[in-house]
Amino acid sequence: MQLLASYLSGSWSPGSGPRTTLVNPATEAPLAEVSNGGHDLQAAFTYARTVGAKELATLTFAQRGALLAALAKAIHGAREELISLAVANGGNTRGDAKFDVDGGSATLSYYAELGARLGATRLLADGEPIQVGRTARMGGQHVWGPRRGVAVHINAFNFPGWGLCEKLACSLLAGMPTITKPATATGLVAHRMVELFAPLLPPGALQLLVGPAGSLLDHLHRGDAVAFTGGSATAAMLRSHAKIIEHAVRLNIEADSLNAAILGPDVELTSETGSLFLADVVRDMTQKTGQKCTAIRRVLVPAEREADVLEALRERLGGIAVGDPSREDVRMGPVATAQQKKDVLAGIARLAEATEAVFGGTGEVKPVGVPDGKGFFVGPVVRKAKDAMACAPLNDHEVFGPVTTVAPYSGEASYAADFVARGDGCLVSSAYSDERDWVATFVGAAAPWAGRLYLGSSKMAAMSPGPGTALPSLLHGGPGRAGGGEELGGERGMYFYMQRTALEGDASVLKSLLGSAS
Amino acid sequence: MQLLASYLSGSWSPGSGPRTTLVNPATEAPLAEVSNGGHDLQAAFTYARTVGAKELATLTFAQRGALLAALAKAIHGAREELISLAVANGGNTRGDAKFDVDGGSATLSYYAELGARLGATRLLADGEPIQVGRTARMGGQHVWGPRRGVAVHINAFNFPGWGLCEKLACSLLAGMPTITKPATATGLVAHRMVELFAPLLPPGALQLLVGPAGSLLDHLHRGDAVAFTGGSATAAMLRSHAKIIEHAVRLNIEADSLNAAILGPDVELTSETGSLFLADVVRDMTQKTGQKCTAIRRVLVPAEREADVLEALRERLGGIAVGDPSREDVRMGPVATAQQKKDVLAGIARLAEATEAVFGGTGEVKPVGVPDGKGFFVGPVVRKAKDAMACAPLNDHEVFGPVTTVAPYSGEASYAADFVARGDGCLVSSAYSDERDWVATFVGAAAPWAGRLYLGSSKMAAMSPGPGTALPSLLHGGPGRAGGGEELGGERGMYFYMQRTALEGDASVLKSLLGSAS
Repeated sequence: MQLLASYLSGSWSPGSGPRTTLVNPATEAPLAEVSNGGHDLQAAFTYARTVGAKELATLTFAQRGALLAALAKAIHGAREELISLAVANGGNTRGDAKFDVDGGSATLSYYAELGARLGATRLLADGEPIQVGRTARMGGQHVWGPRRGVAVHINAFNFPGWGLCEKLACSLLAGMPTITKPATATGLVAHRMVELFAPLLPPGALQLLVGPAGSLLDHLHRGDAVAFTGGSATAAMLRSHAKIIEHAVRLNIEADSLNAAILGPDVELTSETGSLFLADVVRDMTQKTGQKCTAIRRVLVPAEREADVLEALRERLGGIAVGDPSREDVRMGPVATAQQKKDVLAGIARLAEATEAVFGGTGEVKPVGVPDGKGFFVGPVVRKAKDAMACAPLNDHEVFGPVTTVAPYSGEASYAADFVARGDGCLVSSAYSDERDWVATFVGAAAPWAGRLYLGSSKMAAMSPGPGTALPSLLHGGPGRAGGGEELGGERGMYFYMQRTALEGDASVLKSLLGSAS
Repeated sequence: MQLLASYLSGSWSPGSGPRTTLVNPATEAPLAEVSNGGHDLQAAFTYARTVGAKELATLTFAQRGALLAALAKAIHGAREELISLAVANGGNTRGDAKFDVDGGSATLSYYAELGARLGATRLLADGEPIQVGRTARMGGQHVWGPRRGVAVHINAFNFPGWGLCEKLACSLLAGMPTITKPATATGLVAHRMVELFAPLLPPGALQLLVGPAGSLLDHLHRGDAVAFTGGSATAAMLRSHAKIIEHAVRLNIEADSLNAAILGPDVELTSETGSLFLADVVRDMTQKTGQKCTAIRRVLVPAEREADVLEALRERLGGIAVGDPSREDVRMGPVATAQQKKDVLAGIARLAEATEAVFGGTGEVKPVGVPDGKGFFVGPVVRKAKDAMACAPLNDHEVFGPVTTVAPYSGEASYAADFVARGDGCLVSSAYSDERDWVATFVGAAAPWAGRLYLGSSKMAAMSPGPGTALPSLLHGGPGRAGGGEELGGERGMYFYMQRTALEGDASVLKSLLGSAS
């Protein structure tokens, strides 16, 4: 069986000691192994700080953008192989796998183009020149430059390809050498991607650690930056990590999120907007088996439409075959690990205490094309809550699987916004309405609690990617429970890896500095 | 003796229990008392979250700007009284006191004007509309809106007036209700300012806690934001505070900073640029008795000019009278507290182990016009290090008083930048040179380690405020040791109190939302 190697200090090394086995979550067949340790991580940090940082510092944004374009091309070249790995190791249907792999290459391509636009410079202007003296001679100019340090990426199990690429695109374009750590259980796609990327990048620009993090964070120092996607328990551990506190290490966290979808009071279910709403809810429940941090977990519908919504969901979900995702007739695969299955079932049980069953009971399912008793399967589950705001399990706990809960409301926009807020901060929430005043009231009150607000309407329904798709051009991250981080959103996602500095002095000198950086 | 009251939940309350006495640091004469507790802080948070947040949410940026203009006017109206309080309670000379008080009103006025410019709206556009679909119909627009929660300000003892105003200007203009806590020892100016401000602001917009923080932070919740200025030990306590971690409370920290000043190899001491350099070093040592977070602590000069620089510093510092700052002939007062004196003397002793004395020995001084043995006085101290990079006490420990250390170098710009970096992140560093290539090399390499780089040159010498002055239009904050925070810098300082949200949907709806927010 393949023993996955880490790519550290310029070479591939398998590590040593005990091993963990990566399996196919549909069949539990073993796929590969990783060592649980045995790497010289201090040497890897030193390599990044010296070799990697130096190599990247010589490059302009345009040159770093060209590197990202090469990475995107490498993914395209190995697309089928990567998709197969995602299907085997991630429990992904082919559609899910494409979502992960193509999402990764599209994000790299987007940032490649952004790099070309930023041009042959190493300092980015932040805003216009500022007069700070009595005359225009004495001025100020804010600039962004790369931080000196190491970017450490700790990715989630659900998007091994896209997650790697979306973080890497921003840190590399910003100019920071990066050590990336995929989640162990689903690490095959990320491992293969780094095999493809390594020959295309300057030495030290990208290193890969497969297997457990071990002492990774103990080597952090001032100037370093850690970007994490995962659960809130790990997030809390990171926040309180001694080295992160001691050295004021920057921390970008993307954690739990109780994303809401709200049907406006004006929307007929048979309208374009109504169809979009239903399609988005069903897609978010079933795509990646609901294992998207952006997936809709809470659904609020006008009381008079609740019965119709529930009926429509029952009908659509009833037609979805669950099973081995390598089969063409299967629309939804298993969750990624035994632990995830356990957590999702526990979450459903918690919900069941405070809600009524609508579809799928508590998640039991007979998967198609799978040996008896094998695989980490949970079927799609819809629950129904009487009082949206009062239902604690609905609003306080993210069930990371194919599970959603529907609750009724009066149709009031301010209540809808309060319901978004009740999740204590989310990555994205969505509202479906063609009434502009309702939307304006909702947005004004809900915006502080969401990193993204998706506004479904008849005019965009035909070309909408749905709320569950994080786009490179729009911010990904959310306040409060969602961790408070900011990723993507064009240049916004690069700022975490850069230092904003105010330059103060003779205005003509400041002008020449922006020029001379090229 | 006056018992200072806190302004909480809409009324002034003196608290209860044991008390702390505020003294004149030059004479140790008691000035006022504060209670060490006895306040209902949970009620204060609730008042901010309900009454304060609601009041502020109804206001546009322009209206909130008008409030700030009224606060600035109130300071102008009570300017002499506030200056007297700063002289008595802060150990400030009249010049120091004006720096604090006028700095506060100028910052409020700056943000008042910014509010007027932002206009009659409640959402700020962040960048241009973005096309996210196949056609321009499906779009994205990033916006900034106020966070829902409480802004908690914990200010440092050295700038009770300016510190209050610079944080308050940003949080109020952003739209967050604020609870401000001045340092106890020097709280008289802040207390008087809030007495002036309270009648001018909507209920719940501003609350004041005088005395110890007590359980203040235990009431933090999601959506809240804490801005802290002070020492790194308290900063580390804040970073690891259970409530801050549990609720992902935003934290802006401005902590220790080993700011450097570098004399370029091209600069004659007798030139305009050379004079500016000397004036800036001496001002930063003596203004506020060196108790400025932005003050120059480390000075790097070309080896061949070191003797001349030391001689010039000796001469200038020799003419500075230290004593009771209420006297017109005194140019430098005491440090603020007995503890500060102890810390500064300990810092000098640490430096003395690794450096040579140049001026002022280890800080002993005979103050003018002060009863024998009274007051927290430390004289100006210049030390000299042989090896700038190797001198650990110089580069690892901020001595928060009238102390600076000079070290020689070859004149190489990259070494100068490495020396800035050796401080592990600073609020500001300065370089004095009229050679543009040297400056460009220095800026490129030093920028990642500084929140501001001040570039002294002949053309701006006549109108320069010096590196030690934080301006409302330029970023104040720095990476690494300096805490990683961002304050001021125009709108940049407001972002901490706002949520950035990506709006996604029909492009015409997004456009109307920005309009409808007005």
